[in-house]
Amino acid sequence: MIIVMKAGASQADIDRVVHKVEARGLKTHLSTGEDRTVIGVIGHDPFSLRDAFTHDEAVEDVVRITKPFKLSGREWRTTDSVIHLPGGVQIGGGQVVVMAGPCSVENEEMLLETAHAVRQAGGHVLRGGAFKPRTSPYSFQGLGRAGLAHLARARAETGMPVVTEVMTPSEVEFVAEAADIVQIGARNMQNYDLLREVGRQPKPVLLKRGLSSTIEEWLLSAEYVLSQGNYGVILCERGIRTFETATRNTLDIAAVPLLKELSHLPVVVDPSHGTGKWSLVIATARAAVAAGADGIMVEVHPRPDEALSDGPQSLTPQNFAAMMPELRRVAEAIGRSVAQTVAAPTG
Amino acid sequence: MIIVMKAGASQADIDRVVHKVEARGLKTHLSTGEDRTVIGVIGHDPFSLRDAFTHDEAVEDVVRITKPFKLSGREWRTTDSVIHLPGGVQIGGGQVVVMAGPCSVENEEMLLETAHAVRQAGGHVLRGGAFKPRTSPYSFQGLGRAGLAHLARARAETGMPVVTEVMTPSEVEFVAEAADIVQIGARNMQNYDLLREVGRQPKPVLLKRGLSSTIEEWLLSAEYVLSQGNYGVILCERGIRTFETATRNTLDIAAVPLLKELSHLPVVVDPSHGTGKWSLVIATARAAVAAGADGIMVEVHPRPDEALSDGPQSLTPQNFAAMMPELRRVAEAIGRSVAQTVAAPTG
Amino acid sequence: MIIVMKAGASQADIDRVVHKVEARGLKTHLSTGEDRTVIGVIGHDPFSLRDAFTHDEAVEDVVRITKPFKLSGREWRTTDSVIHLPGGVQIGGGQVVVMAGPCSVENEEMLLETAHAVRQAGGHVLRGGAFKPRTSPYSFQGLGRAGLAHLARARAETGMPVVTEVMTPSEVEFVAEAADIVQIGARNMQNYDLLREVGRQPKPVLLKRGLSSTIEEWLLSAEYVLSQGNYGVILCERGIRTFETATRNTLDIAAVPLLKELSHLPVVVDPSHGTGKWSLVIATARAAVAAGADGIMVEVHPRPDEALSDGPQSLTPQNFAAMMPELRRVAEAIGRSVAQTVAAPTG
Amino acid sequence: MIIVMKAGASQADIDRVVHKVEARGLKTHLSTGEDRTVIGVIGHDPFSLRDAFTHDEAVEDVVRITKPFKLSGREWRTTDSVIHLPGGVQIGGGQVVVMAGPCSVENEEMLLETAHAVRQAGGHVLRGGAFKPRTSPYSFQGLGRAGLAHLARARAETGMPVVTEVMTPSEVEFVAEAADIVQIGARNMQNYDLLREVGRQPKPVLLKRGLSSTIEEWLLSAEYVLSQGNYGVILCERGIRTFETATRNTLDIAAVPLLKELSHLPVVVDPSHGTGKWSLVIATARAAVAAGADGIMVEVHPRPDEALSDGPQSLTPQNFAAMMPELRRVAEAIGRSVAQTVAAPTG
Repeated sequence: MIIVMKAGASQADIDRVVHKVEARGLKTHLSTGEDRTVIGVIGHDPFSLRDAFTHDEAVEDVVRITKPFKLSGREWRTTDSVIHLPGGVQIGGGQVVVMAGPCSVENEEMLLETAHAVRQAGGHVLRGGAFKPRTSPYSFQGLGRAGLAHLARARAETGMPVVTEVMTPSEVEFVAEAADIVQIGARNMQNYDLLREVGRQPKPVLLKRGLSSTIEEWLLSAEYVLSQGNYGVILCERGIRTFETATRNTLDIAAVPLLKELSHLPVVVDPSHGTGKWSLVIATARAAVAAGADGIMVEVHPRPDEALSDGPQSLTPQNFAAMMPELRRVAEAIGRSVAQTVAAPTG
Repeated sequence: MIIVMKAGASQADIDRVVHKVEARGLKTHLSTGEDRTVIGVIGHDPFSLRDAFTHDEAVEDVVRITKPFKLSGREWRTTDSVIHLPGGVQIGGGQVVVMAGPCSVENEEMLLETAHAVRQAGGHVLRGGAFKPRTSPYSFQGLGRAGLAHLARARAETGMPVVTEVMTPSEVEFVAEAADIVQIGARNMQNYDLLREVGRQPKPVLLKRGLSSTIEEWLLSAEYVLSQGNYGVILCERGIRTFETATRNTLDIAAVPLLKELSHLPVVVDPSHGTGKWSLVIATARAAVAAGADGIMVEVHPRPDEALSDGPQSLTPQNFAAMMPELRRVAEAIGRSVAQTVAAPTG
Repeated sequence: MIIVMKAGASQADIDRVVHKVEARGLKTHLSTGEDRTVIGVIGHDPFSLRDAFTHDEAVEDVVRITKPFKLSGREWRTTDSVIHLPGGVQIGGGQVVVMAGPCSVENEEMLLETAHAVRQAGGHVLRGGAFKPRTSPYSFQGLGRAGLAHLARARAETGMPVVTEVMTPSEVEFVAEAADIVQIGARNMQNYDLLREVGRQPKPVLLKRGLSSTIEEWLLSAEYVLSQGNYGVILCERGIRTFETATRNTLDIAAVPLLKELSHLPVVVDPSHGTGKWSLVIATARAAVAAGADGIMVEVHPRPDEALSDGPQSLTPQNFAAMMPELRRVAEAIGRSVAQTVAAPTG
Repeated sequence: MIIVMKAGASQADIDRVVHKVEARGLKTHLSTGEDRTVIGVIGHDPFSLRDAFTHDEAVEDVVRITKPFKLSGREWRTTDSVIHLPGGVQIGGGQVVVMAGPCSVENEEMLLETAHAVRQAGGHVLRGGAFKPRTSPYSFQGLGRAGLAHLARARAETGMPVVTEVMTPSEVEFVAEAADIVQIGARNMQNYDLLREVGRQPKPVLLKRGLSSTIEEWLLSAEYVLSQGNYGVILCERGIRTFETATRNTLDIAAVPLLKELSHLPVVVDPSHGTGKWSLVIATARAAVAAGADGIMVEVHPRPDEALSDGPQSLTPQNFAAMMPELRRVAEAIGRSVAQTVAAPTG
């Protein structure tokens, strides 16, 4: 069970409700969000609990939850969550959002070149890694803070909000300052201290699925963020690890409608990591939109052959531009639409 | 290398070419099809082999093959294969074909009921298992020959061609007599004697991907059929086995564009087995069409709760009818179309 | 529930019991073995069924089965099955049996050379494929019947019983004639017609685990054999397919004690296919013995570099000879022993 | 290539060598250890580099490395690494070490009870989690710092060194203070900031394999630790995630001899997580020792049914005591031995 406190509930109200619950021998778990507190009730839920708070002025609702994921589940919130970004971009309504950019920010020039190309072709959010989790310590590890500065400039020039990865709790604060969406990479999907930390700041969080994570584990990782009070989680399917080696990962397309059944959170798909081959990206991006995804995240690089990482799976700006009308038509075929182009910055 | 003999080449021509090849220390592999013979050359291919047959009247072409799959690959045939079925149905051109019907033929009445519903909603091919490979020897094993008779009647009544599974070489002859397409199930994808046997008869073969088969192994299994002279192979992606248990299998959507790159054979997708949950079937069927599949194969049962097998993944006729216009719109969005309804049988 | 008829029960007794069961609205499944019949009862088992046959002279026992695998399970037979082979070799008691030989029988000379080396080093059963399931139709497919003849000669010369693979139902009869153990390969683990066919002949059956088969599916495949009356099934763990590519398969060592819990059937381990690298074979063979396996099956080739198949995973005779005392010591460490050397043929 | 500086090399020496390398157009990577610096050379390695430093007084060796993992590989160090712990315990020589204790430290009493039982039965290292990574935010998350205090008391009472997990960089310092071995859990195997942080402190690091990590990725994660100067890494195989659900994970036994080929680092096996079922732990622990593991890590709980986590896979003290002589006999069978019991603390 979850007891949802009203927006204006005082600390005294919360204490009173907690006390009342614990007096019944149950345990409680507080999720203190920005504008309201949710009290999770752990233990054998007596049905009578609901009655006990029917007339409590400070309690908005008492919801029975049967799934292990509570705040991310449809039981707790039946309508789709919508996340609002600067530039009028929203994720999770009937529209399809396209996030694009290089795997890693290699230098300012290539980032700006890519960002402008993405915006002109109709992309909505700029992606680009400043901190890169690399399998080998001897590989390029990203530009770090300098990369964040380049992203800030690209955002200023194009008006596109920015998504970038954060790898460790101590860097959450300044990455979140630079980003409009904070990304948790696949390798960190179960880095719980990091999840808690991004849950304590207000920027939306794009949570990539772990390489071998089940849907349930993924939603429970989202739960770590939500239970800290940050409800702006976007789930990103990016392929799972299987025996098949012809593609880099196996894109789990059924995860899209399944997540839509289980959760109210928006779902985007990354066909670049999902396939690892640029020639498969457009077809699988179309498939993702047809399956009901709220967005697509793809890697674009002006010269994939020279990319410092993930070149083989990066689209050229030309291929990216060719993909956009295809996605638009597929979105319309299923009664949705690709969102409008981001407004150019004034001034 | 593959030496493709002209359609009218005589046995003497073939012997002569084989002799000439083997005189160079190479081995040969004969694929005798209905109207032409292909001579596979095994060993280190000298480039000069091509020159040696440039002026040979009986030789149509000499093709260099670098992939392990030869006859199924794009190197050998660059244009898409198209398979023609009774009722004017064709698989593999720009159109999308829908195959539907019950998992297993349970009795004549339910089969006819389903067949008519499928046809009315715009389905093109009737599926239904008479011989069922079941994990347990204690489960319902299908009606066998009686099931084939029911399928024959459904075909006569609706005009729809029929696809049904064959499980063992000794049954190929009479299953192929009753079927318009002979299906090889996932568990038999590497049952090589069965593959050879269906390769020796003329009906098209729908080859399901094995539960843990790589794309390459799958194309090599197709190769067993093709190398016997039957070029009418349809590949059917039906999900692979992974760690994820929220769905019955993981539908490998990227296999569709990847197969299109590697092979000229038509590709259909089975979202029923691919997901195992009927509520996910329509979204993933749309995704398959958007990814470029030449067809869809789904399970339909008038009363899924009473199905002897695969009830949880079967669409009702109502849901099937609701899916068809969705697939039509997605097909059109990518410049393709769902094929016309099968002509009703006259008489 | 399973009703076990006494050894001498007549057909009339069986009919009577079946009739009595079906009169209660239950279905029956007959398993007619060589010396006794087992009547499987399908449907909701009333506890009273047991009482109904307490005093029936023709009924030996009525056993309640909760697992989907019945005849292969511990519920039905609590003591370990032991399989007796010519030459005094037995599989499944406290001893550890070693099966060894080339992947495929390439010619008589190399087979005899290998067989003598295996026997001298203390091996018990000669393995060698005459019919080879190969991923590609263009690879060496085995010598077929000629290979069986070579195996017969090797058996005559060394006294070692022979295990060899059968690939299709129509070949069961003559393969079973030549073999002391008939092998079902991993790709055919769910080739149900083949399983039924080997279940109808008397030679023991070595059933390899499918590449992506669960333990439960594997035992249900064994059940296909047992339910035809052949109780001589040996389970062979040979690695499963996973994401890891550093080894050819992932040897599932825990399958050994797990099968011992669930089933009374003997379990052997094939570390050659399980790892795909000869340098890992000895260590994993030791592990298999330590885990409680009833035997080991390894590939041995006099000149692995020249092998027509599986060279990289084949031991040389020298390495095989070095492995034997290691296995002996590990077996003794856990209170078991490696079986005595096979008696040389007289005459 | 790796250039290994002599132990006493000055910063000026290092600068000089780096300069000389970079003057050839190559890049360098410094690994500054406690007593020596290793200069990794990145780029196309000219063979002449070796000659260039033959007579350099400050250079100990120039080693050509072909694998992506360098410092953890056999190419760089051919002899097995041995790690020395308090109480005279060493990991990585010819002896087998047993680490045991509860999954999580639940309270001081149960920890002490378990620790004494482990020591009396011959265990060498006490394991126990104070910080627990749990899939759900609503599960017991460990006692945190209080748990570390309990571990300190257990170490003081029993003399056994302690291994415990650290989950985030900011906690490395005080966890490392309390622990004799710092554990990186499976979910954090690619948490690179955490790896770097434990690489900068001197306590040995037990690095668990990620649920879907390849051997190569695992060694590259070890490389993150080693490249910071901490060479005391112990690899812990704990099962990988596969399609099989009969066990919690699939224990990859072949990883043991494979790691021994590729790396000089000690390897231990965790059959508790590897199987998830206590009844399979002893057999697979024996298998691990037979395969050549340098140690075993198992969960022991005095009352598994009441455990706050991992009860089903925990041995009772009685079962643990029964396992020890079995491991001893298997170790001796392969020419190794289980280490002596830890000396009791004096005073």
